[in-house]
Amino acid sequence: MKAAYLEGTANIRVRESAVPAPAAHEALVRIRSVGICASDIHYYEHGRIGHFVVEQPLILGHEPSGEIVAVGAEVAHLAPGDRVSIEPGVPCHGCEHCQAGRYNLCPDVVFMATPPVHGAFAEYVAHPASRCFKIPDGMSYDAAALIEPLSVGLYAVERGQAVLGDRAVVLGAGPIGLVTLLSLKSQGIDAVTVVDVVDFRLEKARELGAERTVDAREVDVASELADSFDVVFETAGAPATVVQSIGLAARGGRVVLVGLSPDDTAPIDTNHIIDKGLDVVGVFRYAHTWPKAIELVASGRVDLEPLVSAHYPLEDVQDAMDFARSRKDACIKVMVEP
Amino acid sequence: MKAAYLEGTANIRVRESAVPAPAAHEALVRIRSVGICASDIHYYEHGRIGHFVVEQPLILGHEPSGEIVAVGAEVAHLAPGDRVSIEPGVPCHGCEHCQAGRYNLCPDVVFMATPPVHGAFAEYVAHPASRCFKIPDGMSYDAAALIEPLSVGLYAVERGQAVLGDRAVVLGAGPIGLVTLLSLKSQGIDAVTVVDVVDFRLEKARELGAERTVDAREVDVASELADSFDVVFETAGAPATVVQSIGLAARGGRVVLVGLSPDDTAPIDTNHIIDKGLDVVGVFRYAHTWPKAIELVASGRVDLEPLVSAHYPLEDVQDAMDFARSRKDACIKVMVEP
Amino acid sequence: MKAAYLEGTANIRVRESAVPAPAAHEALVRIRSVGICASDIHYYEHGRIGHFVVEQPLILGHEPSGEIVAVGAEVAHLAPGDRVSIEPGVPCHGCEHCQAGRYNLCPDVVFMATPPVHGAFAEYVAHPASRCFKIPDGMSYDAAALIEPLSVGLYAVERGQAVLGDRAVVLGAGPIGLVTLLSLKSQGIDAVTVVDVVDFRLEKARELGAERTVDAREVDVASELADSFDVVFETAGAPATVVQSIGLAARGGRVVLVGLSPDDTAPIDTNHIIDKGLDVVGVFRYAHTWPKAIELVASGRVDLEPLVSAHYPLEDVQDAMDFARSRKDACIKVMVEP
Amino acid sequence: MKAAYLEGTANIRVRESAVPAPAAHEALVRIRSVGICASDIHYYEHGRIGHFVVEQPLILGHEPSGEIVAVGAEVAHLAPGDRVSIEPGVPCHGCEHCQAGRYNLCPDVVFMATPPVHGAFAEYVAHPASRCFKIPDGMSYDAAALIEPLSVGLYAVERGQAVLGDRAVVLGAGPIGLVTLLSLKSQGIDAVTVVDVVDFRLEKARELGAERTVDAREVDVASELADSFDVVFETAGAPATVVQSIGLAARGGRVVLVGLSPDDTAPIDTNHIIDKGLDVVGVFRYAHTWPKAIELVASGRVDLEPLVSAHYPLEDVQDAMDFARSRKDACIKVMVEP
Repeated sequence: MKAAYLEGTANIRVRESAVPAPAAHEALVRIRSVGICASDIHYYEHGRIGHFVVEQPLILGHEPSGEIVAVGAEVAHLAPGDRVSIEPGVPCHGCEHCQAGRYNLCPDVVFMATPPVHGAFAEYVAHPASRCFKIPDGMSYDAAALIEPLSVGLYAVERGQAVLGDRAVVLGAGPIGLVTLLSLKSQGIDAVTVVDVVDFRLEKARELGAERTVDAREVDVASELADSFDVVFETAGAPATVVQSIGLAARGGRVVLVGLSPDDTAPIDTNHIIDKGLDVVGVFRYAHTWPKAIELVASGRVDLEPLVSAHYPLEDVQDAMDFARSRKDACIKVMVEP
Repeated sequence: MKAAYLEGTANIRVRESAVPAPAAHEALVRIRSVGICASDIHYYEHGRIGHFVVEQPLILGHEPSGEIVAVGAEVAHLAPGDRVSIEPGVPCHGCEHCQAGRYNLCPDVVFMATPPVHGAFAEYVAHPASRCFKIPDGMSYDAAALIEPLSVGLYAVERGQAVLGDRAVVLGAGPIGLVTLLSLKSQGIDAVTVVDVVDFRLEKARELGAERTVDAREVDVASELADSFDVVFETAGAPATVVQSIGLAARGGRVVLVGLSPDDTAPIDTNHIIDKGLDVVGVFRYAHTWPKAIELVASGRVDLEPLVSAHYPLEDVQDAMDFARSRKDACIKVMVEP
Repeated sequence: MKAAYLEGTANIRVRESAVPAPAAHEALVRIRSVGICASDIHYYEHGRIGHFVVEQPLILGHEPSGEIVAVGAEVAHLAPGDRVSIEPGVPCHGCEHCQAGRYNLCPDVVFMATPPVHGAFAEYVAHPASRCFKIPDGMSYDAAALIEPLSVGLYAVERGQAVLGDRAVVLGAGPIGLVTLLSLKSQGIDAVTVVDVVDFRLEKARELGAERTVDAREVDVASELADSFDVVFETAGAPATVVQSIGLAARGGRVVLVGLSPDDTAPIDTNHIIDKGLDVVGVFRYAHTWPKAIELVASGRVDLEPLVSAHYPLEDVQDAMDFARSRKDACIKVMVEP
Repeated sequence: MKAAYLEGTANIRVRESAVPAPAAHEALVRIRSVGICASDIHYYEHGRIGHFVVEQPLILGHEPSGEIVAVGAEVAHLAPGDRVSIEPGVPCHGCEHCQAGRYNLCPDVVFMATPPVHGAFAEYVAHPASRCFKIPDGMSYDAAALIEPLSVGLYAVERGQAVLGDRAVVLGAGPIGLVTLLSLKSQGIDAVTVVDVVDFRLEKARELGAERTVDAREVDVASELADSFDVVFETAGAPATVVQSIGLAARGGRVVLVGLSPDDTAPIDTNHIIDKGLDVVGVFRYAHTWPKAIELVASGRVDLEPLVSAHYPLEDVQDAMDFARSRKDACIKVMVEP
């Protein structure tokens, strides 16, 4: 099979590789669509994220969908021909966090495209069958791939305890900001303001149903929207917006931090957290989201297609990465089709 | 009656004043003991806290207890002779926060010793009867006064959702740190580490049942205790300890910010909040704590007497303030006895 | 003005009555639409509900909407001409339940059409302005009146902690069953089965979006649907369906009891509650629902018009009551237009 | 080794049996103390509980403690000589309930002394090491065995969301009622009333710290204590007390059903659940309790020794069972020492 290996900074080479053999509890999946995530781009540009360092050629891509072509001996719920969305993380099931129902915090999780674990920019992937979720006929492989980022949005909404009647704001209209918007609206929460600085993204937010969009180049967000929202979602990951997120929350509100920040720290006025009695919660990945995310897309409540900005074949992953990283003015999600 | 007025920076004058007449829903209380709080000292030293500015002579003191001497026409549950602990804040009962059960966030709260509302460094105070809570015979007026700071500890524990089996750390062994320790232990949470830099306070923490005390002058807290606690209580209010509080929390943990910080901001690594999936919550005062706090003291589960370091008569409030603000090495709470 | 008085069993007389004068905190509302509720019918038929006995002629009707015609001196947020939905209950704001955020449990609530408090089958009603909620231009008076039953559905969903991905069943497709269905769907919960025994109601449930309807005359619900649902809503109020509700819940599920039962008791197998680790919660009225209910209708997420089966003028309230109580095969809600 | 087999109704025979060989993930435990539970007695008397039928000779006993004598190849945290308390249930870790953190609801749990799984009335047991919890030196084997029933009490308190300041009542002062009392008090909840009809048990409840005991032979509990408690624990498992439990709860209260009922149904007035807005929750076993239960006993907060009424050697298990089932007037827990 063909697979795309990150062999050095900004250097991806597509080459032949052995088709993996599924273990007894695994399924072999012919990958059909894979979304490019900001973390893929970060590895591509820097060769590392924090203490995760790419030391051997690494296959990136952790938002995959595809078709089952074979299953291991112990797999009963899948059969060749089934179309699936793949959850890329495989937790240990045994640690305190797994047993408490928060497997996203499992320290021993095996996660696709996180060195040294390979990802899905490849024609075939062998993956635990319990993490391959069947999709209905009408769902596209692109949508099935984007169940992964949608899961981040859904889990952010869950962690933020956003409920009917809440006034919400989403800082950042990139992929995660937009799936957060979609997740809010899927649950009846319409009073959603989205803030960004890129026309294309603000327009996309309006297209996806934002009640209001705010261009932070033109509006002094910190002062004009201060103390205004029951729940604030920070997806931009910039220290400036992280600081803002605290200021925008109303008394008794919640602030949901989703976007990892490239800088070390943000100068936060913790007295505001105290005076307003805020809850500030961090969101790391997701847990238990696949079935409900698939259901939301299948029912038509969430339409992920508008997030797809371009498709590239496997051979052109490097071009796809370059497009994704350089064109915030024209792209939300770029899909690779192995 | 005599009352102590803050008339300028570090200038308190005790003078005659009219005994207030209780309104129909109020009780007139002969004040017997009042704790000095850090906010009293802050007004004493700076004449303001944030946008609350002392513009007229102000009676400080908002941790009072005393004896009922008269009640208004509508008051049924109190009678002269009753001994009471006074909750100093009177919320509006009508706003969204009051109606949601979080009256501590009421924007229209009337709170003792917050300009222009007078406090309790006076022989008599008229106060809404619904905020005067009877205490049993065996409870001292000092303990009844200290129900107020204990309430902060209890509410911090509640906001931190600390439960049996949690490993907890309290940063700061001043009055609020120590009532947090007492509040934890009152609910069966014994695995409590307390961190401070003052011998007297660390010793007091041990006396009150801390499982472990850590002298931050001798131990590199940030590295040695990193990722170790299910719940972290920050009561010191210094940017350095605020930053530390995030680092000390284990995956899935909670950080409770209680101590207001004199500095504007703390440089917080929000990626840690995200990676560890933390909940960081702010604690502003308390709500619904008086009955249970009184019960805990009445039953002997919480002993507040060891917090009392000195007593001063009303005439010597200024000396009391000076002692309280200058002698962290020898004092936890200073009580004024009008 | 004209008002309709219940003067005896099944005897309503419309007669002249003085227009009430609004108190300082009240608004005077020209009533435009009032839904007939099962409790109105029960008073009409039996002259009492439990220990609430109609001893004086009583104006029924507690689901009203109308137009503000005058406001008391203290009312700032309403003006003549405003169109409003009226929340019929006025809690005390001072009791433990009000202060805990559950005003629906206030023992001193003053509630329309509950003897001796008059209701809204009248041309004018004076009501606390804080319980009169403005509606937008596009919303009909019928919809505004039906915010009341919708509130029951929304609160049932909240009490049942129904969330995205839950499989739900609603027992009974009368007014409350149908608003529960609408409430679930408004929050993205589509996997809703509705059970009833009346064709007209089952058809209405399908029209309103039930994923599946089950005719309990044809299907052995207890055995065929056993242990199948994450959350069960019992709105029929019959001992048989109450018993069923426990059986239908899956392990770890929740059962929400909404429908009051005419019989004293239901023979419940509590071992099932224990073995399955169920939560069985009772729903009494609602709290904090008006703003979000109005928002859901205003946004088009919830359409209440299909619930309206007939309109009657005030003069014909008795006919309206007779129609409502006798024609389950043809009616969901009957509206009175004073 | 010797083991006690239930070979027919009320017929236990102690005979030789092979010492089990621990699998790679198991530990071999020399059993030192085992509590007799009501379910052991039920199997002894009836040969079945519900659809669990004793079809082959069965070793009973599921409240064991002992000493590690060998460990499998994969076991790292235990070594021969370690003293342990054994959690008798082994969940699958893979099902939805396990993954949601509620492993007590796992349908594939393997549970000691539940046919066809053998229990601990034997000299040796091989058990998954992850379910063997080390106990400190000072803890007796009896106390370590009684961690199991204590777990039921702790989980009941957790499910009942009992918190500081709650007024609680426990119906039934048998083993489970008493561990519920101990669990409440361990968390600072002192206002606990205990109801029973046996002098010995009421006296034991007082000895263990009940604020009040009520003899239901002398007091009309249903009427005198109606609507009086924030949280009600039903541990007696009689239809009459199950019915009572609903009546005793105050508005907004919680009812925790713990005791399985020998009868099929209880005639419950569900209107009370609705009118009072109650939460009625079922408690099936426990989850995540061992570490905190051990900590509570180790710290001295909970003393389990007063529950122990008698000790029997393995040879006399049948006598032990007969004593336990016939002497409610003289026994709480009977311990078997293999």
